[in-house]
Amino acid sequence: MRITNAGPGATARVRAALAAIEAADRPEIWITLRSADELLTEAAVVDHAVAAGTDLPLAGLLLAVKNNVDVAGIDTTAACPGFAFTPKQDAEAVARLRAAGAVVVGATNLDQFATGLVGTRSPHGAVRDARRPDHISGGSSSGSAVAVALGLADIAIGTDTAGSGRVPAGLQGIVGIKPTLNVVSTAGVVPACRSWDAVTIFARDLATAELAVGIMAGGARPWPADARLAAPARPRVAYPSSLPELPPAWAAEFGRQIAALQAADIDTEPIEFEVFLQAALLLYDGGLVAERYAAVGEFVDAAGGSTGNPAALDPTVAGIVRGAGQVPAHRYVADTARLDGLKRQAMARLEGFDAMVVPTAPFHPRLEDVAADPLGVNSRLGTYTNFCNLFDLCAVAVPAGEVDGSQFGLTVVGRTFDDAVVADIARRIETPPLPPALFAAGAAPAQQSRPGEPWPVRAGASSVPLVVVGAHRKGQPLAHQLETLGASWDGHVHTAARYRMVSLDTRPPKPGVYRSDDGAELVAERWLLSEAALGQFLAALPEPMLLGSVRLSDGSSAVGFACDAVAAKNGTDITRHGDWLAAVAESRAEQKSRGNLGGALLTGFMRGLQTGTSPS
Amino acid sequence: MRITNAGPGATARVRAALAAIEAADRPEIWITLRSADELLTEAAVVDHAVAAGTDLPLAGLLLAVKNNVDVAGIDTTAACPGFAFTPKQDAEAVARLRAAGAVVVGATNLDQFATGLVGTRSPHGAVRDARRPDHISGGSSSGSAVAVALGLADIAIGTDTAGSGRVPAGLQGIVGIKPTLNVVSTAGVVPACRSWDAVTIFARDLATAELAVGIMAGGARPWPADARLAAPARPRVAYPSSLPELPPAWAAEFGRQIAALQAADIDTEPIEFEVFLQAALLLYDGGLVAERYAAVGEFVDAAGGSTGNPAALDPTVAGIVRGAGQVPAHRYVADTARLDGLKRQAMARLEGFDAMVVPTAPFHPRLEDVAADPLGVNSRLGTYTNFCNLFDLCAVAVPAGEVDGSQFGLTVVGRTFDDAVVADIARRIETPPLPPALFAAGAAPAQQSRPGEPWPVRAGASSVPLVVVGAHRKGQPLAHQLETLGASWDGHVHTAARYRMVSLDTRPPKPGVYRSDDGAELVAERWLLSEAALGQFLAALPEPMLLGSVRLSDGSSAVGFACDAVAAKNGTDITRHGDWLAAVAESRAEQKSRGNLGGALLTGFMRGLQTGTSPS
Repeated sequence: MRITNAGPGATARVRAALAAIEAADRPEIWITLRSADELLTEAAVVDHAVAAGTDLPLAGLLLAVKNNVDVAGIDTTAACPGFAFTPKQDAEAVARLRAAGAVVVGATNLDQFATGLVGTRSPHGAVRDARRPDHISGGSSSGSAVAVALGLADIAIGTDTAGSGRVPAGLQGIVGIKPTLNVVSTAGVVPACRSWDAVTIFARDLATAELAVGIMAGGARPWPADARLAAPARPRVAYPSSLPELPPAWAAEFGRQIAALQAADIDTEPIEFEVFLQAALLLYDGGLVAERYAAVGEFVDAAGGSTGNPAALDPTVAGIVRGAGQVPAHRYVADTARLDGLKRQAMARLEGFDAMVVPTAPFHPRLEDVAADPLGVNSRLGTYTNFCNLFDLCAVAVPAGEVDGSQFGLTVVGRTFDDAVVADIARRIETPPLPPALFAAGAAPAQQSRPGEPWPVRAGASSVPLVVVGAHRKGQPLAHQLETLGASWDGHVHTAARYRMVSLDTRPPKPGVYRSDDGAELVAERWLLSEAALGQFLAALPEPMLLGSVRLSDGSSAVGFACDAVAAKNGTDITRHGDWLAAVAESRAEQKSRGNLGGALLTGFMRGLQTGTSPS
Repeated sequence: MRITNAGPGATARVRAALAAIEAADRPEIWITLRSADELLTEAAVVDHAVAAGTDLPLAGLLLAVKNNVDVAGIDTTAACPGFAFTPKQDAEAVARLRAAGAVVVGATNLDQFATGLVGTRSPHGAVRDARRPDHISGGSSSGSAVAVALGLADIAIGTDTAGSGRVPAGLQGIVGIKPTLNVVSTAGVVPACRSWDAVTIFARDLATAELAVGIMAGGARPWPADARLAAPARPRVAYPSSLPELPPAWAAEFGRQIAALQAADIDTEPIEFEVFLQAALLLYDGGLVAERYAAVGEFVDAAGGSTGNPAALDPTVAGIVRGAGQVPAHRYVADTARLDGLKRQAMARLEGFDAMVVPTAPFHPRLEDVAADPLGVNSRLGTYTNFCNLFDLCAVAVPAGEVDGSQFGLTVVGRTFDDAVVADIARRIETPPLPPALFAAGAAPAQQSRPGEPWPVRAGASSVPLVVVGAHRKGQPLAHQLETLGASWDGHVHTAARYRMVSLDTRPPKPGVYRSDDGAELVAERWLLSEAALGQFLAALPEPMLLGSVRLSDGSSAVGFACDAVAAKNGTDITRHGDWLAAVAESRAEQKSRGNLGGALLTGFMRGLQTGTSPS
């Protein structure tokens, strides 16, 4: 998926956004809004670059940035005015999006120091739900999520330690991507719990979110050489066998949606969820919270002196941080060991599954519910998100309709580095994007679907294209070999006009291709594989198949199939068909017209293709 | 390298060891010695299995086990009698060695709770140097190292957090392998610092140590798909530009040995060592020590009541552990963050190097030196070992001669998962194994050199054999492509008699191979590659080269080279030579006899090979 620059220019989009922000009258979303002058100047630069032919995949997309992430020249406050400092440079994630043409609208409100899942823990006021202002936004990336849900920004940066990039996405009916830890750099981000902090993205649809996160990625943690680049054609997905904290209507809706996944070619199976819940207890009731004191404890201690509250500390947050300072190190170490044990058990639960689907948030509280029980509601909200970063999993939260007047969301959770797998499955679950709750920031940019190019590839996984002409084409008998290796289908191509094709006497039937001075163009398909997957595929490849460089009709080269000399000599030339599937179809039709359908083997079909000439 | 069962049987080896242990009169080595009856019974089982044809690569090798590692039925004490418990099963590392035929002689003394590098911190007495009893053994794996150095055991298990598997190897003139963390499972090991503990092996020569560690490996942490399986032909190795703590004679010896590496085809270059030293400060003066309290702190607190010292706590160790209980968690978290920063800097220092060589221990103290300054001497001894596990590096310590009457040792340190690279480089540095200081435990087993099979492969890295016939053979123009990918050379093979070979008009000259009904056997060589390396190699392979399954003369198959149909048709058949190098040699001789050496291109040489017949 690629967003073209066919929509209105950045300047027009900025003007529309400024009008929408004013009309929305939700000042609690923003801690700092950039001035119209600044925004229009920056938009003009983008428009000029696009006019000059610069490829800016995010040209003119309006970006909101959670205020614990540095934007050059805007105070980073983490929603604590006394903590403010003015960064000289953008956080790496912000810099990458701006370099791709995104325009930063402003810095958004959050639960102070990203400590909370509610969106109410801020001296700038509680951020209210986009549609029902007596309900919470969810947090801690509250302002970012509501800005996107309302249509005041196209994309927004959040952060996520225990669910802060997913809970508000779920409650606001938008997409939230929480990548594998450190795939997006956390440089320039105020830490919450340094070991488990992730930079996230919000958008109203998955394609836009994937595009943005692909650009943000390429950070500190390289993709492994065997990273899966796609989900299999028929993924196997786990879901919790019991649903703690969900009201009956929400649980029923979850059950209904799980049942519906079968129609999207997703096999589902319940698993025991208890071990995932236990990890959350370590975060809230154990020693792991000490990371919050390590992050901002000295500041909080110094700010909370006898002089009142000049730093505007949120009392709930300050209490949590101060408590975190009392944890002895050996308890933290012991709880980390316990966490490792829980992770091993959780991974055993997920054995054989491609991913797990959970409700994003278990319910949607009102502001008054949170006020009545600030710690309890917050803790329960994280039931289906807390474990994720602790176990180093990746997750994509997508909107999935409504229940009881609330937005309902599902989150697909996957193993470390399975980001592309999780995104593929989420794409099948995602409901059509909701219209923005109030306004669209400019008209939506024109979008143009494009196969392949999953974001881990864009983000630097060393993928290799493999061109196939026969049994490994999508839907053909051996495609599963590539799918099992995590290959991503990348569309149709044609070879250059320099190959001949024979039918081989193999099971299943395969074409054999060889380079020839008297060759033709062949219809082919391209997959993307990790380097390790390609090596594994080659290691298992049986005689007479070979792999090597194949020239394509556009002049590029890719790894592709050939057959060995004996097979080429003995095969039946079918070059004239130019397409293996056409050759198969004609052979079938011939067999049928001969009334020979019954016992004929497919290899027999192939032997019947005595129509080409063999030059060897 | 593979140790055959040609030596004396396990029973004879056990009898010799029992005699040697008695004659050595070093009771401080052992915390528990198994009875002669038990040992002879177990040895008989091994001899019986070998006689029945069972493949036991370690048959009859005598194994000593550090007493913080479980051996079923032997009390695990960690050198603290009050801590003792009787494990029902072997630690995973022990179980794997026993399953391969090793016989456990007994459990060895250590610095209590593996806290120390000296070997003196034990209620069972200080373990003395194998050769000069007024000197320390080094620790904490003191008994294990001296048992091997004296010849009372062939191999010994140690553990290593800050150098406990390397410092005593260096001081005792033996080999110590400290693998990448968790490559060998720590299940069944009393933790010292859980995050940085490694199980290690001692032996008198590297080949035996590699064999053993390969069998121990296959633990919790899988090899990555792009693990390097060998060092390049000419590795580039860093060494510290300054040598803190080394007396002048030791520093001179280190310099002499570094200079000598050039002769072993190792390029060396000094690097700034300060960042490595800073990591050690975090361990000794920072918050990371809290892991020691998390491991045994509750026990130490309970044991050190008002009732004297019934648990026989070592006062130095107890002091360290109790101090570790006072660290607040936020300090531990902050120091972990500092450590990450130091690691980034250290990895930047090592950029472009295959490994780093350091002195193993900086000096060899006497018992009285340690008594006079127990903490200071201990801390200085770890100068060249402390940083290693903290940065998740692997290391191999090898003997490297003598200095000032002490054993001198070098350690090769490499990146995470570069265990095979480090072992390859250490193999070039290793001096011939010293004779055991006093006795040999039975006669040394017969050893038989065998190419390839580096231990990470044995340990489960998914390696793929690649058969080459021409320019990728060892020493040929394109071998560097495979070496750069971390391929390990695995010896000569022959193809089955079903291939023809042509000379291709390429630069450098290459043979082209294709399957033929009229084929012959070809001389070839085999490399082992990781799956990712094979994928990367294929992705870069230029036309007309192809890769696919090749049959070998022994009936097995492997990935091998072919050329495409056009190249096969246009090439000059040289099948009759049966060996690309023979064809090249004959061509060169012909050219020379024609007085045509001057300007002739090698491609011209190849065109001159008009001797074969082309069947295509």
